Order: sequence, then structure tokens, then C-alpha cells
Amino acid sequence: MDEPQRARRPGGRSARVGAEVHRAVTELISERGYGNFTVGDIAARARVADSSIYRRWGSLEALLADVAITRLDAQSPMPDTGSLDGDLRTYAAQVAREITGPEGLALLRLAVALASTGEQGLRARDEVLAERARQLQSMLDRATERGEQAPDALAVLDHVMAPMYIRVLFGLDPLSPDYIDGLVDRLLRG
Amino acid sequence: MDEPQRARRPGGRSARVGAEVHRAVTELISERGYGNFTVGDIAARARVADSSIYRRWGSLEALLADVAITRLDAQSPMPDTGSLDGDLRTYAAQVAREITGPEGLALLRLAVALASTGEQGLRARDEVLAERARQLQSMLDRATERGEQAPDALAVLDHVMAPMYIRVLFGLDPLSPDYIDGLVDRLLRG
Repeated sequence: MDEPQRARRPGGRSARVGAEVHRAVTELISERGYGNFTVGDIAARARVADSSIYRRWGSLEALLADVAITRLDAQSPMPDTGSLDGDLRTYAAQVAREITGPEGLALLRLAVALASTGEQGLRARDEVLAERARQLQSMLDRATERGEQAPDALAVLDHVMAPMYIRVLFGLDPLSPDYIDGLVDRLLRG
Repeated sequence: MDEPQRARRPGGRSARVGAEVHRAVTELISERGYGNFTVGDIAARARVADSSIYRRWGSLEALLADVAITRLDAQSPMPDTGSLDGDLRTYAAQVAREITGPEGLALLRLAVALASTGEQGLRARDEVLAERARQLQSMLDRATERGEQAPDALAVLDHVMAPMYIRVLFGLDPLSPDYIDGLVDRLLRG
């Protein structure tokens, strides 16, 4: 990849611009929602030129994906508690807290928004998900290395994360600790 | 409920207006996506007055919910095959066909859109979901009456529908018949 701006001066102007642009995107998402702002809106708020954004990220979609990954890494780092059971419970509780918080369904909204914006959107969505899938797979690989019987990453998605996402999206019961533990129990039993 | 227009002349002008408005909404959803058109746009396309739409449905959100329920009832009627196993497999396959079709994630998109539009949107979303939940519950009640051991409706949502929705939304593997049957097997075993 050709990313001269990003690599050249870490901590300098480039880093400041990156932080300003990320902040502008985060504010615009919470004020207007995905799909309701342009690269021009972001540039105006971050006081940079549109062309700087296109040069660095390539597209609005790639920028949104970058912001989403940065945010997920900061707010929901993959746990490493020393046991699969502990890791899965901690991770599930983190996801629950994230999706019931004020920024709530940001990742689902982003996936819905990106899936509606053609090829670049789909690529950006896939990049966010691949990054999270790699992190989840590392957690499961650590369990296997310890000699534990680990489920597939897709089974974790299907039976722990998907039910929580859909319940929040459909406005059903709050995600109680018992409910979340029940999802993990069921997965580990299965 | 006070719905003089709807009740007064079934099959007459009121029914024609209803069909025109539904068609206009369906077209606008597929052309522009949820959240990107107004009651005025619908009225113009259906050649009715804005006020007719507000009088009959009360809000854009309630109209979107009405269209969603009508569409779901027509395209995914709850099956009644005589066994729980048959009903669940048929239903799961129907949902899979629906969400991988051209209108794809319409219901999820609608839920995301309505959840972002305040109280009226949330009420409309809850109405769509309550109607589907009632239909699913009837299917499960029939199984119980036949002496079968039926799961909770929420378990069907959590472990059969949610995984399919999230896999399609995240652009993962296609929903193969084996995968769908595996979800039902796992639910009935659990």
C-alpha cells in the first residue's frame, strides 16, 4: 500500500490531522447518523482540505471503516483472561455494554450503511469485520494452544454476538448478565 | 382506533389509495433506501394529498411499518406443515430466501431506520415486530398443542433468525440449506 502521508511523520502534523478527522467523523455520526454527511462536511469540520482526506483514505467508506476499527480497538479490546470461558464471558459483556451504550448500534448502522453504498462500501465493511475476526480468532487460538476445546469464530458470531445485536436492534429486553452468560453457556455446551 | 377512511368503503377508493401508497413506498424504498424520502415524496408518486396519508396512517413511520407487515405477510407467511420440525425448517428457509433476495435486508434496514427516528419510529418498529412475534408464537403453540416440546419464540429469534440476519448483513458465506438446517437442529437439540 502506498500511504506516504500516514508513514512519514508519526506524531507530527499527519497525526494531528488524523485525530482531527477522526473526531469530526465521530461527531458527525452522532449528530446526523451514517449516510447523512459527505467528505466535504468532514473536511470543513476538521479544517482540512477535501483532497487531504481523499489522498489519505481514498474514500468516505474507507475513512468510516478506519474510524470504526480504531473505536472498536479502543473500547472493546479482545480480553485475555487465561481461560476460554473467561475470555468469552468478558468479551460478550463488553459487546453488550458497547451496543447498549449511547453510540449503541454504531457498528450495525455502519454495516447497513456501507452495504448500501456499492463496492467501496462493501470493501470497507469487509475490512472492519476481517480485523475483528482476526482478533477473535487469536483469542480462540490461544484457547486451543492451552488445550481447551474452542468453538469456531463463526459460532461465536452466530450464537453470542448475533442474538445480542438483533435483540438491541429490535428493542427487546435489556441484555442482562444472566442472558449473556446463558448465550456463552449454550455455545460452550454445543 | 378512529379509522373512518379505512373502514368506510372497503374495495372502493380507499382500497385503491392504500394500494397506490403502498406501491409508492415500496418503489421509493428500493430506489432511495429508508430515511431518504418524505411523506411528500410518497404523496406525489401515489397522486394523493399529503393530508390523506397523515389522516390514514398518522406518520411516515406508521406507514412504513404497515408496508413492512403487509409485505412480510405476503412473502413469508408462517408455515403450518403439521410438525414443529417441518414448520421451523420451512420458516428458516423462507427467511433466508427473503433476506438474500433483491430487497434483502429490508426489515433490518427498516428497524435501523426506525430506531433512529424517535418515539414514533420506535413504536412503529415495535408494531411490526409484535405482529411477527404473535405469528411465530401461534406456530409454537400449535406444536405444544400437538404434544411437541417447543422452544421459546425468543430462542428462535436468537439462534435461527439472528445468525442469518447478521451473516447477510456482514456479507459472510451464503446461507446454504445445510447451514440453515444446522441452526434448526441446534435449536431443537438445545
